[in-house]
Amino acid sequence: MGIVLKDILAILPGQDGDEVKKTSIYIEGNRIAAVGEKPEGFLEEKIIDGRDRLAIPGLVNCHTHSYMAFMRNVADDLSFMDWLFGTIDPIEQQMTDEDTYWGACLAIIEMIKSGTTCFNDMQMNIHQTTRAVKESGMRAVISRGLIGSGMDEAGQMRLRQAYEERDAARDCDRLSFMLGPHAPYTCDEGFMQAVSGEAKKNNMRIHVHLSESVSETEQIREKYGCTPIEMADRNGLFDVPAIAAHCVQATDHDLDILKEKQVSVVTNPASNMKLGNGFAPVAKMLEKGINVCLGTDGAASNNSLNMFHELNLLALIHKGVNQTPQCVSAKEGFRIATINGAKALGLEQEIGSIEAGKKADLAILSLNTPSFTPRNNLMAGLSYSANGSEVETVIIDGKIVMEDRKLLTMDEELVYKKIDGIIARMGLDKKEY
Amino acid sequence: MGIVLKDILAILPGQDGDEVKKTSIYIEGNRIAAVGEKPEGFLEEKIIDGRDRLAIPGLVNCHTHSYMAFMRNVADDLSFMDWLFGTIDPIEQQMTDEDTYWGACLAIIEMIKSGTTCFNDMQMNIHQTTRAVKESGMRAVISRGLIGSGMDEAGQMRLRQAYEERDAARDCDRLSFMLGPHAPYTCDEGFMQAVSGEAKKNNMRIHVHLSESVSETEQIREKYGCTPIEMADRNGLFDVPAIAAHCVQATDHDLDILKEKQVSVVTNPASNMKLGNGFAPVAKMLEKGINVCLGTDGAASNNSLNMFHELNLLALIHKGVNQTPQCVSAKEGFRIATINGAKALGLEQEIGSIEAGKKADLAILSLNTPSFTPRNNLMAGLSYSANGSEVETVIIDGKIVMEDRKLLTMDEELVYKKIDGIIARMGLDKKEY
Repeated sequence: MGIVLKDILAILPGQDGDEVKKTSIYIEGNRIAAVGEKPEGFLEEKIIDGRDRLAIPGLVNCHTHSYMAFMRNVADDLSFMDWLFGTIDPIEQQMTDEDTYWGACLAIIEMIKSGTTCFNDMQMNIHQTTRAVKESGMRAVISRGLIGSGMDEAGQMRLRQAYEERDAARDCDRLSFMLGPHAPYTCDEGFMQAVSGEAKKNNMRIHVHLSESVSETEQIREKYGCTPIEMADRNGLFDVPAIAAHCVQATDHDLDILKEKQVSVVTNPASNMKLGNGFAPVAKMLEKGINVCLGTDGAASNNSLNMFHELNLLALIHKGVNQTPQCVSAKEGFRIATINGAKALGLEQEIGSIEAGKKADLAILSLNTPSFTPRNNLMAGLSYSANGSEVETVIIDGKIVMEDRKLLTMDEELVYKKIDGIIARMGLDKKEY
Repeated sequence: MGIVLKDILAILPGQDGDEVKKTSIYIEGNRIAAVGEKPEGFLEEKIIDGRDRLAIPGLVNCHTHSYMAFMRNVADDLSFMDWLFGTIDPIEQQMTDEDTYWGACLAIIEMIKSGTTCFNDMQMNIHQTTRAVKESGMRAVISRGLIGSGMDEAGQMRLRQAYEERDAARDCDRLSFMLGPHAPYTCDEGFMQAVSGEAKKNNMRIHVHLSESVSETEQIREKYGCTPIEMADRNGLFDVPAIAAHCVQATDHDLDILKEKQVSVVTNPASNMKLGNGFAPVAKMLEKGINVCLGTDGAASNNSLNMFHELNLLALIHKGVNQTPQCVSAKEGFRIATINGAKALGLEQEIGSIEAGKKADLAILSLNTPSFTPRNNLMAGLSYSANGSEVETVIIDGKIVMEDRKLLTMDEELVYKKIDGIIARMGLDKKEY
């Protein structure tokens, strides 16, 4: 179908970073056919009036656990290790395959409604997640969280599962896969080496949690005499393109490693604050030229998957931490939430900006809102004022998945009901209301 | 008109702080007639179906400058003094009375749409603000920002204006007034004494900016040999009930003064981060038992007036700063955003909670949203997940001012157009689009 966004303000790549320009955007099949002039022979089958609207590249959520959406607001005000091993793990023990499917559906609904068009997911059941991704029209990069000791049976089994799942989803080109060794405190050195060997052999990327909490860095220091980032490095994790979530406790030496090995860092501001882990050294990372991208983490530790919320946190907290109002500008924040994420996923030729030839992954926002009034500086509006509810229409892979805030591929109310059912079954709902 | 919110989940005061309960809320005239049982003879003229909805007390924004809404996104990434004296002041020199009116209208629209039902405003033109408040049905406490040296002519004139304006708005009981000596770096000791004398004589409260930036504390230390809070204290500002905005740089001794003199502190997390001022010592304030309330500050330094955004920041950043996931719980945050604000304004008998006899200031939120799915812990949802767009209907002083997200008292599109006109006249719009 030929879709045109006619006479619309759009965030487009410019000489000095992203710029706001009035233009028209032509979409054919799953790609952007042109920006500006109508391509010869283009059939305008669907016209979206650009008046009072802003088109942006869809946001790229570079670290989440979609299935955890059903655990939103179940475990608050707990320290990291108590949260993970005391509350989340026991819930995961009770979780069925269907639960992970409905969790992924809820996550995808929330992400689409707030302008995210691609997410990088580490989870427990790839089959169910890919099912939700296929049905919804979403784009995702998926890794099974791998936990293991040497190449023990559990580790081997999980790795086998990861490959099987990957192969089963090869028919959908909105899906791609990474290997996901969970973290240095859940994978030992032998297992890390085995996984990085597999990644090299199969030409796959790696998605890993690193240096999230002080308790992690202490534990790893005690066990291996080094930082979690050093441990990952010496076991080959950075010999393939890697994406490291958190890095809150990264030392200066760690940052040098990340830069040298061209590791992308996903910062997750809400989750890092909520679990009491603190603030990642994002200002230093940017200074060193590390590719920083943005993620929400799972809904159990955020408790939202709204990337506008995350972008706003990113653009504010480092100004506070560094007492410098110039730290992470609106423009820089937006780049981190879009093209930097695409780069981290190895998809920068395909998504992350509005350019002819790229996949048509876009969000269209209403400008008739307080957040964008006055219309003097829309880039600042995106980072500082918007809350995500301005998103009206979302296009992924050339297909309209939400129009005027109505989801076209998913049954929102059914998903909400299913999720409440899971929580009731697990006895996690508050009985008093 | 008798309004009933029928069979609705509501945040109600309980023995151990706020609780979520299913109930019905009966509104008669401008007050809550009953919570629970229908009062005898109550005429149900308007029934709001409570299914899938949550009623909360309207949020209380305890520090803003409503007229500045038209300056949203005009001055980003600047240090505090450059921002104030280099950018905002020159804009204010060009500002007409009408501009302040439209600014206040925009601010009120944004606040109502995100569930705020009362705001504490320091501004430049009370007449225009009260006009916007009267027309919109909003509730506000207003102070003219007073700047002066001794009792110089300018200071005398502003104080006279403040009284005249107060007297002119006496016909609206949604309005009340404070005296607003701007800050220790814009008012000298003689003027502070004169204003606090007036406040005592007229039984008025005081609204003041204190210890916002390091440059302020350095300047005051050099000039007076003390902190801004000590300077305010020794000039009598705390001899009447006072509300102090910011207190980011408050020392332990300052906090003792604030506690002893029962000063309420309004914390403004977004603005403090955005201007590079840092994080107020909110954990210490709460520990000491200071009445902490919440504000957005003006849209020129936030750049949003959405109290859900602010509540979320409040509930997250202090966990990060103190590396303690228990710091500012969801429940504590919500109290800070509601009843603590009412206390700070001297209105705790009238607003800030849903109780029979209080003014009917309420927001009704949709629960059919990702933010509140699952419905296991709505208090956490309010502080951690909601973004304000869940607010469907707002009642202020017993009157429905927004229904199903449609504003009933204001012309939203007209206000947006007027604001863009101001920005164009001042040459502040980006010419490229």
